[in-house]
Amino acid sequence: MPVNFTPPLPEQLLPIKGVALGTAEAGIKKPDRKDLLVITLDECTKVAGVFTRNDFCAAPVIVAKEHLLSLNSLCSIRALVVNTGNANAGTGEGGITSARATCAELARLLGCNTHQVLPFSTGVIMEPLPLERIIAGLPAAVADLKTDNWFAASQAIMTTDIVSKAASKQVSLNGATATITGIAKGSGMIHPNMATMLSYIATDAALSQPLLEEIVRYAAENSFNRITVDGDTSTNDAFIVIGTGRAGNSAITDNESAEFAQLRDAITEVAAQLAQAIIRDGEGATKFITIQVEGGKTRDECLKVAYAIAHSPLVKTAFFASDPNLGRILAAIGYAGIERLDVNRLRLYLDNVLVAEKGGRAEGYLEQDGQRVMKQPEITVRVVLNRGHASTTVWTCDLSYDYVKINADYRS
Amino acid sequence: MPVNFTPPLPEQLLPIKGVALGTAEAGIKKPDRKDLLVITLDECTKVAGVFTRNDFCAAPVIVAKEHLLSLNSLCSIRALVVNTGNANAGTGEGGITSARATCAELARLLGCNTHQVLPFSTGVIMEPLPLERIIAGLPAAVADLKTDNWFAASQAIMTTDIVSKAASKQVSLNGATATITGIAKGSGMIHPNMATMLSYIATDAALSQPLLEEIVRYAAENSFNRITVDGDTSTNDAFIVIGTGRAGNSAITDNESAEFAQLRDAITEVAAQLAQAIIRDGEGATKFITIQVEGGKTRDECLKVAYAIAHSPLVKTAFFASDPNLGRILAAIGYAGIERLDVNRLRLYLDNVLVAEKGGRAEGYLEQDGQRVMKQPEITVRVVLNRGHASTTVWTCDLSYDYVKINADYRS
Repeated sequence: MPVNFTPPLPEQLLPIKGVALGTAEAGIKKPDRKDLLVITLDECTKVAGVFTRNDFCAAPVIVAKEHLLSLNSLCSIRALVVNTGNANAGTGEGGITSARATCAELARLLGCNTHQVLPFSTGVIMEPLPLERIIAGLPAAVADLKTDNWFAASQAIMTTDIVSKAASKQVSLNGATATITGIAKGSGMIHPNMATMLSYIATDAALSQPLLEEIVRYAAENSFNRITVDGDTSTNDAFIVIGTGRAGNSAITDNESAEFAQLRDAITEVAAQLAQAIIRDGEGATKFITIQVEGGKTRDECLKVAYAIAHSPLVKTAFFASDPNLGRILAAIGYAGIERLDVNRLRLYLDNVLVAEKGGRAEGYLEQDGQRVMKQPEITVRVVLNRGHASTTVWTCDLSYDYVKINADYRS
Repeated sequence: MPVNFTPPLPEQLLPIKGVALGTAEAGIKKPDRKDLLVITLDECTKVAGVFTRNDFCAAPVIVAKEHLLSLNSLCSIRALVVNTGNANAGTGEGGITSARATCAELARLLGCNTHQVLPFSTGVIMEPLPLERIIAGLPAAVADLKTDNWFAASQAIMTTDIVSKAASKQVSLNGATATITGIAKGSGMIHPNMATMLSYIATDAALSQPLLEEIVRYAAENSFNRITVDGDTSTNDAFIVIGTGRAGNSAITDNESAEFAQLRDAITEVAAQLAQAIIRDGEGATKFITIQVEGGKTRDECLKVAYAIAHSPLVKTAFFASDPNLGRILAAIGYAGIERLDVNRLRLYLDNVLVAEKGGRAEGYLEQDGQRVMKQPEITVRVVLNRGHASTTVWTCDLSYDYVKINADYRS
């Protein structure tokens, strides 16, 4: 079960003016489960996204980027369509044709242009998209469209997720109240770079397109990119921020304004909550681990140390076993590839317990204190490098028997 | 059980003139198991080594490097001492003192200088070395010294290894027969960078010190460094090559001579056999996987692709499940970080079966053919990048339930 995470109740997810959502059972891979989501956007809605940087990027990613680029100020994105059960990745030219055909059919049903629809897919890769089933399922999803449908939407995009992930938040912008609601899916956690992560966050706040682009990058950098390796992403990853501009605030156009910072931070908070939910629901996860690296020369070297710890299977199995195996953490720091690291200067903490310093076990450290921390479902590993003022935080989970089981059985 | 690997019989391991080996039960961590090895070398023996590049390097590594550097042409290494059960890593100044004290005591017993002894340790890290037990065990190991003791030596250095690893080979050098015998330990395989690898290879061939240094680097690069990430090594890794010069060949001093190439290749072959044995005995391994990357612009980019595949837990669990999950392999290639990779040009083979090309599943590829290959205990993944003439090979194993079990229970 997910670590300290309960999905929000449907009524806790606030509708966003200008956004409607509808789901359907298209039978793409398994019967009797919702596997198709349509999101429609009122006219003049702004959309910005960041996508996977994997060289093998899936057909829907190629088409979504194409459609986003082809729009001009007179013509906005009117719909998103997401299917689970099949990622339409590694499917060659046929995959592109299928992604375009999906958009064309939804455009026909909604009365807009094919380029105004963005397609997304997640599921097994290298298998042809069952286009007919998706097309056959679209009318039901369209018939289901309603504004208070975020909870159903969060459920329809699940794959190996155990729980659905969604969050809402409100922020006051110069007197007007703006609402932010988002959903996400993803749970393949040991190397998240290969497990599809999809997230859609919408706000009714009014702001300019360049500022929306700035927010999507900033929010990704401080949420979903903190649970994955820079530049290493799956074939299908996408994070979309939608701004409908219907909150009644005067449009934000200055990225130095207080309103901009408020909105950016609120959206980032929702994104971070969703990103953490992905880790809490990590495949086979039994522990939620926060890795804080401080006192580095640059943020980049802090990230290297954090990811070396977060990606070490030996460290992750030790967390699973509640074993305060300091040596494995120190060895990971040692091979992180930091230039001229003086291991005698760094300090390592498990929560507030100083466990290592001066190149070895800290004086006065008792294994029982480390053990106590390691038994908790939430653990903070804090590394103080003592060579500069940069810092970063990364979130990860442990590596359990169940991780192997889930991933060995995935296709059966 | 190890994948297609049977340890050699004691009589298959050929003695090396000038090298004697003795083992003992010092009770360092567990009773009733050999955990101490002493290797003595006759006078004028040449020794060269490569060590971990981890910034956290263990006390014995620091001392061994110091002793190797302090020697001059008049004074040679006379002994090596290896203990299991405790890695003497992350033990601060006290650890250095203990490593030096071990050398001093063995030097006293053998009648040589402390600097003529190299210490090695493997086992749990961050725990103080039980120096008294090691010192108490040394006389028994010295009393056991004999030249035909390589098999017992290979057993005494095992930790989580299921089988001992050793190999012998002979090579004719201008009429004289030179013998090569080596042993190795190591089995923590998913990220070998954190699992100690120790290997000692001795030959009676006569050659100059600079050429021995060249051979140790070449052999490491084409064996143990092909099962690990460049520069990412554990706290204790060491690979030592010993040349006693007693084979009767005229000493090799020219690195362009045929004899040099013959000797270098024979030693590298023994090293590769030992390195592969480490993978075959990988923790929880059920499959031995060879990853060949060809047609790259540089060897470095071939290595990046090979390691991206070899380190992906998703790929490794698919091997465990005998699942020809091409998508996971392609996604790993896609995030390997190669500049301007055109995924439409590469070809992917499982053994001789062409499974992917043109960015997707190969035409005519049948899943049953991929399945047949994946069910074998030995699998070759071949990636043809089609953008240059460089190539490389990396060996790895799958990721099973047992890997998690072994590493979660390691200290209990």
